[in-house]
Parts: sequence; structure tokens; C-alpha cells
Amino acid sequence: MTDQTKIRSGGRAARRAARAAPLPDHMRPVRAGLTGGAYRPLTADGMDRIHAAVLDALEQIGLADAPPSGVAYLTGAGASLGTDGRLRFPRTLIEDTIARANRSITLMGRDPAHDMELSGARVHYGTAGAAVHLVEVDGRTYRECGVQDLHDAARIADTLDNIHFLQRPMVCRDISDNLEMDLNTIYACCSGTTKHVGVSFTDPSYVAQAAEMLHMIAGGEDKWRARPFISNSNCFVVPPMKFATESCLVMEECIRHGIPVLLLSAGMAGATAPSTVAGAIVQALAECLAGLVYVNAVQPGHPAIFGTWPFGLDLRSGAMTGGSGEQALLTAGCAQMHKYYDLPGGAAAGIADSKLPDMQAGWEQMCSNVTAGLSGLNMVYEAAGMHASLLGFCHESLILGDDLIGQALRCVRGIEVTEETLALDQMRAVCMGGPGHYLGTEQTLGRMETDHVYPRLGDRTSPKEWSELGKPDLLAKATARKAEILSRRSAAAFDPALDKALRERFVIHLPR
Amino acid sequence: MTDQTKIRSGGRAARRAARAAPLPDHMRPVRAGLTGGAYRPLTADGMDRIHAAVLDALEQIGLADAPPSGVAYLTGAGASLGTDGRLRFPRTLIEDTIARANRSITLMGRDPAHDMELSGARVHYGTAGAAVHLVEVDGRTYRECGVQDLHDAARIADTLDNIHFLQRPMVCRDISDNLEMDLNTIYACCSGTTKHVGVSFTDPSYVAQAAEMLHMIAGGEDKWRARPFISNSNCFVVPPMKFATESCLVMEECIRHGIPVLLLSAGMAGATAPSTVAGAIVQALAECLAGLVYVNAVQPGHPAIFGTWPFGLDLRSGAMTGGSGEQALLTAGCAQMHKYYDLPGGAAAGIADSKLPDMQAGWEQMCSNVTAGLSGLNMVYEAAGMHASLLGFCHESLILGDDLIGQALRCVRGIEVTEETLALDQMRAVCMGGPGHYLGTEQTLGRMETDHVYPRLGDRTSPKEWSELGKPDLLAKATARKAEILSRRSAAAFDPALDKALRERFVIHLPR
Repeated sequence: MTDQTKIRSGGRAARRAARAAPLPDHMRPVRAGLTGGAYRPLTADGMDRIHAAVLDALEQIGLADAPPSGVAYLTGAGASLGTDGRLRFPRTLIEDTIARANRSITLMGRDPAHDMELSGARVHYGTAGAAVHLVEVDGRTYRECGVQDLHDAARIADTLDNIHFLQRPMVCRDISDNLEMDLNTIYACCSGTTKHVGVSFTDPSYVAQAAEMLHMIAGGEDKWRARPFISNSNCFVVPPMKFATESCLVMEECIRHGIPVLLLSAGMAGATAPSTVAGAIVQALAECLAGLVYVNAVQPGHPAIFGTWPFGLDLRSGAMTGGSGEQALLTAGCAQMHKYYDLPGGAAAGIADSKLPDMQAGWEQMCSNVTAGLSGLNMVYEAAGMHASLLGFCHESLILGDDLIGQALRCVRGIEVTEETLALDQMRAVCMGGPGHYLGTEQTLGRMETDHVYPRLGDRTSPKEWSELGKPDLLAKATARKAEILSRRSAAAFDPALDKALRERFVIHLPR
Repeated sequence: MTDQTKIRSGGRAARRAARAAPLPDHMRPVRAGLTGGAYRPLTADGMDRIHAAVLDALEQIGLADAPPSGVAYLTGAGASLGTDGRLRFPRTLIEDTIARANRSITLMGRDPAHDMELSGARVHYGTAGAAVHLVEVDGRTYRECGVQDLHDAARIADTLDNIHFLQRPMVCRDISDNLEMDLNTIYACCSGTTKHVGVSFTDPSYVAQAAEMLHMIAGGEDKWRARPFISNSNCFVVPPMKFATESCLVMEECIRHGIPVLLLSAGMAGATAPSTVAGAIVQALAECLAGLVYVNAVQPGHPAIFGTWPFGLDLRSGAMTGGSGEQALLTAGCAQMHKYYDLPGGAAAGIADSKLPDMQAGWEQMCSNVTAGLSGLNMVYEAAGMHASLLGFCHESLILGDDLIGQALRCVRGIEVTEETLALDQMRAVCMGGPGHYLGTEQTLGRMETDHVYPRLGDRTSPKEWSELGKPDLLAKATARKAEILSRRSAAAFDPALDKALRERFVIHLPR
């Protein structure tokens, strides 16, 4: 539009000086828990119709395969067990459950600075998943991932401002014993970050040992129960409309041990859920509401994140796809229904189908991440690092995701309209007898750090500067940053005495 | 989240067969003119306050530097000329102008199939800009761009479903005579695409010759005036709040010759506009409303696109940045104000600061493109191909932009809520005595082409398939597609007799 992209650098020294002073956290342009909600893909009528279909589904179709304990809990709460083995939920039970459920959940970090308050349209971004490959940018390679890769991901996430939590994004493929894998997942995550951690458990009988580890890390059961810093990502349903029997038992165990639960329904639209966006949302909501009844029947008020995670499918191939516009709609539609119910919730966004952190990955990750944030999703899971439709996790992509999510968060923060930001006085002063430009005005300088998000690795140089710098490659910069982060001692590392005790009590696979 | 991303391929043959039949245009999952508006970054109160500030700015500050003809038109319409040379606009004049302005504009293509109806929240994406470099992916090079590059861009855009118009994205740097440059820009664009074309004129005296060329292309002045297929991208203001004297005269000439006008206000937030998002929007709106009064004073009802294009600035360096979250907000906020006024409008989105089509470019282009679409922006300019904060244009990026915008358009289309899409009947049939999955249901198969956008170059293979395919590189695929497009004869090429006549009448730089 104009060739003149460089403007006078008047006040540059002043701007540099202003920038030198670090910002207090509350003045940072973006941060965890900003309020979204300006994007509403569903109309009020659409939401009512979805809700009506959800109630019908729960009342008429119900869910199969609850474990005997679940049948007892749920029939005790008011559900009825049909001769076909399906538990059906009267609408009053659902409505009462919604009415009594937590309006707010605090997910805690080992460091309280990382606590997240899930309520309203407050937005948090983090990792998640169960990738089985580490994506190596150098060499464009997919290889099996292991516990060291997971720990490195935790350490990297710990340093990234816009990654607010670490749900385990990769499976420790190098640990064959499932119990050891589950325990080492906790160890690898928690020794790498003091942010909130999400993990899953393969078997209900593992939860007690995990709790023992958590008590040790916390410094006692009482301290753990006062500030639980991990949650259980629990696939309590096998869509469509069946409880995952074992996972339900894991959930019951987690509740007993004070572990917050993510009620995760992960239907695939077109395979295990209806292919339509609205239909997949209906089913996910129905399943998660059944889960919410379950949790509250076991322990009223136990923190449970409403995890409607419908995924997209490429209907041509039958393979999962998470990078599509349909995925962005699935997630944003769920987020809006969470607000409809006023339930703290989460869903998946930021998934790339692309195998590498290339342009496709950038557009895929941004599309669902920015729309998820704008829709006010409390927990945006899978937000960074995820490739190949969840099969691969990439450290460099995680690092770049920090920039990407920073920008999405700037959108979530929105447009501030005040006397000052409307800037009529400035306009008057600048245009009538003033300098004719806004460079160096008090308002411009005063807001340059608090209003604007600057990318850390994203490049804003001119073609000339870029060329003079040797045309730096984005991925090479991310790889260098990864090396730099991992070369430092982690601020989250366990105290040596604790580490020793953990290693004596458990088989820890991470080298000391 | 789950390792199982591949589901049974039951019905694959049926799906393949269904896919073989081409879709009629109205059944395509996305198309030009889909209705956005689900994203509203401004509250109702915020919009009222912005409007009030706009009226104050026009009444109290006004605009300087109108040409004498403009002063005559505008004072004739009711503006008053101050002793300081500024034209001030009473609020009744502004309100009357808004009330009487076009609610709808049709921008026509040389092929009527590409006509765009600009009204309400109907969304169209296309190119724009005045890049001075062509970005060569192979070699990562910025070189001066020329008329052949522009023509190639037009030919590529002509083949891309999700690029709905071609505003000239690059300057013909290889044509030193400005008149020849302007005329050859029209020739290079119109001989490459039958979609609507936008151009600018360096001097008011060039418009008559341009009109002569347009009459020849149209087959006569009457045919041109009945279906004008180019518009004039007119930077009629030099922000803050000054008319661009020469450009105003160009505008007057364009109006006389029946050329629709894009009233383009391109302030830079923090330099030529207030640094705050709200303030930059206020100023852009004030400037464009002044332009709207001007156009309607010259010729009531002449088609004028309300072009509020505030750009972002990196306040640390003083350089323009178009890839930021702030940019996305500037554009979406403007779009919402267009709806507030019910004026057909456009703004800039899709700009990458990145020098190359890499991950950064992907996230930057998607962020502002998807939010612009969701905000219901009628004309999303600069939507594809633009790098280095508008200094470079890249053919490969344009091609990839087609996939990116297809996905953004899928989000714009939104979530359909009907009895069928709520899918309760399907859910019932599948879960209770049915197959337990939705693969191959009539609804899944029936909607696989009409509901889902499939990327053309975007990769959805599994890591295994991808590896077997030789790990295809996204940019290499785009380069191959570019070669393929340009190897064919353009469907938009002029009839040989017309081409001969044009070449006899004008100095045409493009080789035959």
C-alpha cells in the first residue's frame, strides 16, 4: 500500500530507555486468565437447541458400560439403568447438576504464581496430548519419544510466558512398564516445571502410588491436598455414549486422592461422533454432563474440568485432522456452551496436521488457537508443539508457539475503549498546531510496553536488515533457543534431598 | 490425546465415488460472500463512544489540504472552511451522509461469475498492496518486482477459488514512466484474471487514458459503465486528518469515468495515527467519513468502499508491522464499525512481517485473516502473498494463501444448527443397536464434500505416509503448482484482436 514502512526514529533513545525497565506482571500486555468471549459462533437460539438435544440424548440414549461402582453412584444420584445396560439421565438431574457444579476451579502450580482460575471466559493456553514421536526439525525426522524428551518439554514450557500449564504432551515410549511410565511422567513433568501439570493413569491401581509421589513432592499429604498441582486427564468415555470402564475407576481413585479431574470426551466427528459440528458438540456435551454427574455423585464439588474435545476427521481418508477450520469451530462452539452452562471447561486447539513447523503449521495452530481464545475457552489444550494430527511433538514448535499464543492473547485482550484510548485530545494536539505525527507523544511512549506484544523469535526486520543478518531461519533460531534453555539449570528442579528420596522410593528413569 | 488417529476405512470406495462428482458452486463448502459477524471485538457502548469521538474529530479538528475543487464540493455539501485551512464537518452532515450512502456495492468482475456484492457482513478476500520486491522462495531472495511478476500474480489469483479479487499487490518497478506504469498495471492485471481488479493512479491526468483502455477491454464505454471491472484504490488522505491533494483529484477523475473508488485511509498507529487501537480506529473512521462526504458531493451514490486501513507499528523500531495481534484488532474493530454504519467497507489483513512463507508467516496471515472474516469485513485486502510488512510479494505464498483463506472461510461459514446437524436421530440409531460409529452413515457421506474444506497443498498424511512420499516440502509443492498454473494458457487472456488493438494504442511492456 505504501513503500514507506520506516518512519522517523525520533524519540528512539527515549523508547529504548523506557523499554529497559522491566514490567510488573499486572502491566504485561498479555498474561494468563485474560477474558475472551467476543467471538460467539452460536446464536442464543442455537445454544438453546443444542442444550435441548443434549438433554434428549441423555434422557433417551444415555451411556453404556459404566463400571458397577459407577452404576451405583449414578443410579444413587437419580439415573436409571435400562435393561439394555444404558444409564439414562432425567433432565432434572442434569439441570440440578449444572446448577450445583463449581462455577470456578483453581488449578494450582507448584509455584502459586502459576495458579490458574478457571471461571467465566478466562483463557489459559498449554500443552496436552499423547504424541508418540518427537519431531526433530534438524533432519525433518519423526522418532519415538522418551522420558527425556518429555522432561525437556516441561523445562522449555517452564520458561515460556504464554504457556500457562503443561499437560503431558508426549508418551514415554522408552518405559515399557505402565506403572513406571505413569510415575515417571509425573516426575519428568514436575521436575521440569512449577506450572500446573496434567497427566493420565493407565490403571486405577496406580493412582495410590502416584499420590504417594505427589505427597513427597508437596511435602506431605496435607500440603498436597491443600494445593494439588497436578490434574488427571481422564478419557472417561469411549464415544459415542459409552463410559470407559477402566478410566472411570481411575477417576474414582483420583477423586479419593484429591486430584482434580479433566473429564475428557474425545469423539472424532464423522467416526465416533456425528460428522456435523453441531452434532459432535451435542454428543460431547452430553458425555461430559454425564461425567459431571458421576464426579459429583462420588464427591460433590470435586474439581472437574468440562473437557469437550471433539476432533475433526478427514472424511476422504478416515484419518484424524486437527488443523482444519471445522476443528476451530468444534472447539469454539464447545467453549461457548461452557459459558452457556457457566462451567469451567477446556477443549483442544492449536493442533497442526503438518508434519513440521512450517507455514501450514503456523496457520493451522493460529486458526484454532485465536478462535478458542476469543471464544473464552478456559483451558486451551494442545495449544503448542503438536504436529501430525497429534502424533508428533516438537520442541522448536513449542518455543515458537509462545510467540504465536502471545499474539492470540493480544487479540483476546481486545480493544480498550476509554477517553484516553479514543485519543481525541492527542489527535487535536497533534493535528492543530502540533507536530503532525504521534511519534514520541507521551501516550505513545507510555503504552509501548503495556499495549504491544513483541515477538521473541518472530522476525520484524526489513528485507535489508534481514539480509545483513544473514537471512536468519526461524527454525534455527528456535533450535538455538532450545539449546540455550536446556543448557541452564532448571528453576523447577527438585531439591536434592527430595530428589534422592524419590529415587530411593521409585524407579526413576531420568538420569540424575 | 489418543494414539489411534486412523480409523476404519469402511465406505472408502463409496466416499471416493461421491467425491468424484464435481460440486455445483452453491454447494461448495466455502465461497465468496459468506456472512461473518460472529466476532465482535467492540461492545455496543464502545461503538457509540467511538462514533461520538469520530463526530467530534470531524467537527472540531477537521481535515486540511483539500484541493480547491474539493473545498468547493465539501463546502457546497455543508462543511465549513476555517481560517486555518481545515474543513470541518457538522455532525448532521456526517449523519446525513451515512444515512444516504450506499448500503450495498457490487464490484464486478470481467466475468460476472466473479461479481462481489458488498453488503452486511459478507466477506471477500483478495490481494492488495504496493510491494516493491518479489520474494523468491528458491534462494530466499528479495528482488525488484516487475510487470511480468504482477501478471503472473494475476494469472495465479485467477485460478484460486478463495482469492476473490485482485487488487494490484506489486508495483511494476521495471517501468519508469508513471503513466506507462499505471496503464500497464491495468493491462497486466486484466489480461491475467477476470476477477475484479483494483489499481491506483499516480496522476489525475492519467485517468482519461486508463478509461480509454478500459473501454477497449470492455468493448465500448457503455459496456464499461454498465459493468466496471476495476476500482481505484485511492489514498485520499495523508493521516492524520489531511487530504492528499493530488489523490483527491484522481478520485474526482475516477468518479467522472465511472470507476468505483476505494477510500483508503492508511494511518500507522503510533506514527500517523494514535498508538491505541481505539484511537487509530477513530481517526480512520473520521477520515473515511470525510471521504464519503466528498464522493457523494461529487456524484451522489457513486460506489465508494469505506477503506479504513490502520496499520500497526513496532514502537521499538518505528517500523511498520502488519503481522501482529494489534493489527488483527485494528482491522476487526474497523469491520465492526462498518456494520455500525452499515457501509460496505474494507481493511487490511493477512500481512506477514516474516520475510518468507514460514511458520511465522502462517500464524501472522491466519490471525488477522480469520478474525477479519469472522468480524464480517466485506473486503479483506492484502489477504495473501504479502511479506516483510508489505514490502515483498510472494507467488508461492499467494498459492498457499488459498488454502489458508479456505480454512478462514470455513470458520466464517460457522456452525449450522438444524434438526439434521444436531444429529439426535443419527446418535440414537448409531448408539442403540447400531454400528456404534458414524462412518458411512448417510449423513456423514452426504456431507463430506459440502461441509468440509480440504486443503489443496496442506498436508494431512500420517508421518509414515509422509516419509514414504519423500517428506514433501510445502514450499516446493507451491513452486510446482505455480509452474503448473503458469504453463497453461490463461483463461483470462485477451482476445487476439483486442490485444493487438491495445498494443497499437498503448505501450505495452508485457511480452506477447
